[in-house]
Amino acid sequence: MNPVLEYLAQHHERFVRDLGDYVRFPSISAQPQHKPDLQACATWLAERCRQLGLDTELCPTPGHPVVLARTPRQPGSQRPHFVVYGHYDVQPPEPFELWTSPPFEPRLSGSSLFARGASDNKGQHLAHLNAVEAYLHTGTELPCDLTFVIEGEEEVGSPNLAGFLEARRTELRCHHVVISDTGMPARDLPALTYGLRGIVAVELKLTGPSRDLHSGIFGGTVDNPALALCQVLAQLRDRRGRVNIPGFYDDVVSLSPYERRQLARLPYQERAYTKFLGVPQLAGEAGYTAWEQRSARPTVEINGLTSGYQGEGSKTIIPAWASAKLTFRLVPNQKPRPIARCVQRHLRKLCPPTVRADIHIGHGGEPYLLDPRSPAARAALRALAKAFDREPVLLREGGSIPIVTEFQRILGAETLLLGLALPDDNAHSPNEKFDLDNYAAGMRLGAALWPELAAIA
Amino acid sequence: MNPVLEYLAQHHERFVRDLGDYVRFPSISAQPQHKPDLQACATWLAERCRQLGLDTELCPTPGHPVVLARTPRQPGSQRPHFVVYGHYDVQPPEPFELWTSPPFEPRLSGSSLFARGASDNKGQHLAHLNAVEAYLHTGTELPCDLTFVIEGEEEVGSPNLAGFLEARRTELRCHHVVISDTGMPARDLPALTYGLRGIVAVELKLTGPSRDLHSGIFGGTVDNPALALCQVLAQLRDRRGRVNIPGFYDDVVSLSPYERRQLARLPYQERAYTKFLGVPQLAGEAGYTAWEQRSARPTVEINGLTSGYQGEGSKTIIPAWASAKLTFRLVPNQKPRPIARCVQRHLRKLCPPTVRADIHIGHGGEPYLLDPRSPAARAALRALAKAFDREPVLLREGGSIPIVTEFQRILGAETLLLGLALPDDNAHSPNEKFDLDNYAAGMRLGAALWPELAAIA
Repeated sequence: MNPVLEYLAQHHERFVRDLGDYVRFPSISAQPQHKPDLQACATWLAERCRQLGLDTELCPTPGHPVVLARTPRQPGSQRPHFVVYGHYDVQPPEPFELWTSPPFEPRLSGSSLFARGASDNKGQHLAHLNAVEAYLHTGTELPCDLTFVIEGEEEVGSPNLAGFLEARRTELRCHHVVISDTGMPARDLPALTYGLRGIVAVELKLTGPSRDLHSGIFGGTVDNPALALCQVLAQLRDRRGRVNIPGFYDDVVSLSPYERRQLARLPYQERAYTKFLGVPQLAGEAGYTAWEQRSARPTVEINGLTSGYQGEGSKTIIPAWASAKLTFRLVPNQKPRPIARCVQRHLRKLCPPTVRADIHIGHGGEPYLLDPRSPAARAALRALAKAFDREPVLLREGGSIPIVTEFQRILGAETLLLGLALPDDNAHSPNEKFDLDNYAAGMRLGAALWPELAAIA
Repeated sequence: MNPVLEYLAQHHERFVRDLGDYVRFPSISAQPQHKPDLQACATWLAERCRQLGLDTELCPTPGHPVVLARTPRQPGSQRPHFVVYGHYDVQPPEPFELWTSPPFEPRLSGSSLFARGASDNKGQHLAHLNAVEAYLHTGTELPCDLTFVIEGEEEVGSPNLAGFLEARRTELRCHHVVISDTGMPARDLPALTYGLRGIVAVELKLTGPSRDLHSGIFGGTVDNPALALCQVLAQLRDRRGRVNIPGFYDDVVSLSPYERRQLARLPYQERAYTKFLGVPQLAGEAGYTAWEQRSARPTVEINGLTSGYQGEGSKTIIPAWASAKLTFRLVPNQKPRPIARCVQRHLRKLCPPTVRADIHIGHGGEPYLLDPRSPAARAALRALAKAFDREPVLLREGGSIPIVTEFQRILGAETLLLGLALPDDNAHSPNEKFDLDNYAAGMRLGAALWPELAAIA
């Protein structure tokens, strides 16, 4: 047996105790009163990094500090360099009454450790740190240089991460970024998340009369802005569930047969999924599976509608205006700005001359795609297979992870998303837990990943 | 000259002073603190009725009292009987700062008397009372019996009027009800309002998932209830501006060529109307004039839309539900219940199986139509012509006047709507005024009307 894996197996109980210590810090970045707890948590983590042999800095930012920890470097090292990202801050635990045990008192039950932050994300990056400890304490040479960047503001949108990366751009230049902060589709189904959807937000407001009008006195002679809005928005999706805007699909990269075969391996039960969402019937773009629809195909959604009278009973008005908040989920290679322009152009065309249209383009985020047949992706898949002793799956996520595009923009590096969370880990919910089998598998992943990645770098 | 008209001309200044006294009462039915003012106002009015020679009762109701005043009856009178309706309560005067002079201190300026309630409705029914005074004080025989019903709760929906009419049903049995509480389309253009639109309110709520869903994680596999709502509502009106619901027009009585000719006489300037409403362009059912569209054709309006996130910025959700408040304006002979059923049936048909539809039928009101060529209508038109010395027009109103249908339901009598308000009288707005020329014309109308109506009763 390889000494690194042997070390990890031997020290498993201590690693679980370490995680228990780590999750005791109520490092809730969204709540200002917890600022000292974030500082204490970062200090604990930095000390832990130093103990295992990393050159560690506690780097202040305008918000909570970043823990920066490097494996010892040989002078003038030409070895491949990888950055491991994680975050020590956690979601607020409220509502407390739904927790079976206090959120910041770790509780072991079966193969799970229950605590806020256990899965998202303390357990996941601690697994990587433990793997490095095993390398260093067994005298096994790491085939690469590693830098851990563990921030304290992920749950509030990482407002200071980009600035930090810009400031440290030279020393953080690397071959790849590795993040374990996503999920696995099921127990024993390790996954490489190779694609993320992007997003662009658009707000449309239609204004008709200069004030709400009496619908009896004037109704019949003016357009109703709420009805006009419905007639515009109704046209944005066709009967096959496609976004009905000219040019919208121009830059969409089709799923390859290989990707579709891989996505088809993901577990899916229509009845259970329908019940979980509580919908009477699923709906989506014709010709695609649910996994494809929710992660690899673009969408249009109305996030909110506002018009006229919304209280009890009725008010017989023609409302002066009506508005809708829209978001479009984007897939590679759609870009937020060109898509926003094509949405805007089409909305202007659809709006009738009987109302005035105001269109506001909101935030945007680019989609992300790592070639799933690239050497790095294959290396990550081999490491996953070794760590879990299972054939890993390829996964796309339907949401965005803005830091991934930040790493690409600032460091020019692609990210390997190797999540360890299970679907029932209750991230962001009461009774969050982390599976200790996955904790151990995460450590074995750390052990296997660096030789695989270094070999292809 | 006829002694009644002579009397009215001679006493004009005193009648103006009377109106000034009457409007000093802040008889604001919507504001509980004004209850004593309503009582005082009703007492003043009852006293005024007694002075001019009417048998007067101040009738308590669960709300504000009704003033009931009868012309002296000959024992066993077989003369025709008419009811004159009015209301002594007024709209709240707020916002005070927009009034040029205090709302309850009458101010004469040019031919106008400014005060809250001057036009709506104190001046209008006082004109009728003055005409009766002229009959009685000149010893001119009235050709009919009259009963004035002046209530104090019109501006709050007349909650106790139906009960009062039911209780007095026998003594109030009459040939026609006369109400001067509507408007004239322009100065010197007296009008008989012979039609009103009805209404039915419907609320539609579409529910999809059991809670708001993350649009990244789940978007693409479930319908968006807000978009589904838009796609349903968009179909309710066609490109020609017609309500697009099977059966909706089945009971609509077409405008006769006579009516269309009459409505075409009404003043209308498209540019001024467009500017007044503040819309970029008018819109309405193809093939009808604006006057026809707003008073004699049915409509569908969305009064309010509610779904998802409505605050600042964006929230990337698929909302769990979306709802709309709708009202349909009805024209003779559409009935609220059958129309509600046909709307409900069609909405159910339009709603896709991917959402659950809840449809709530709200309040309804029947449309009203008096045959404009009936003897009573012709008699009223003759009286208007005499009083104003102008050819009167026939008018329909686009709104509803629920008491009109109540009079029909409870007393079995049709109502003649002979409004004296001008479009710029600012009813319900700051700086309400009543035109004193119209006040005088209203008295002459009262003088001319009873012989005309009695002759055809």
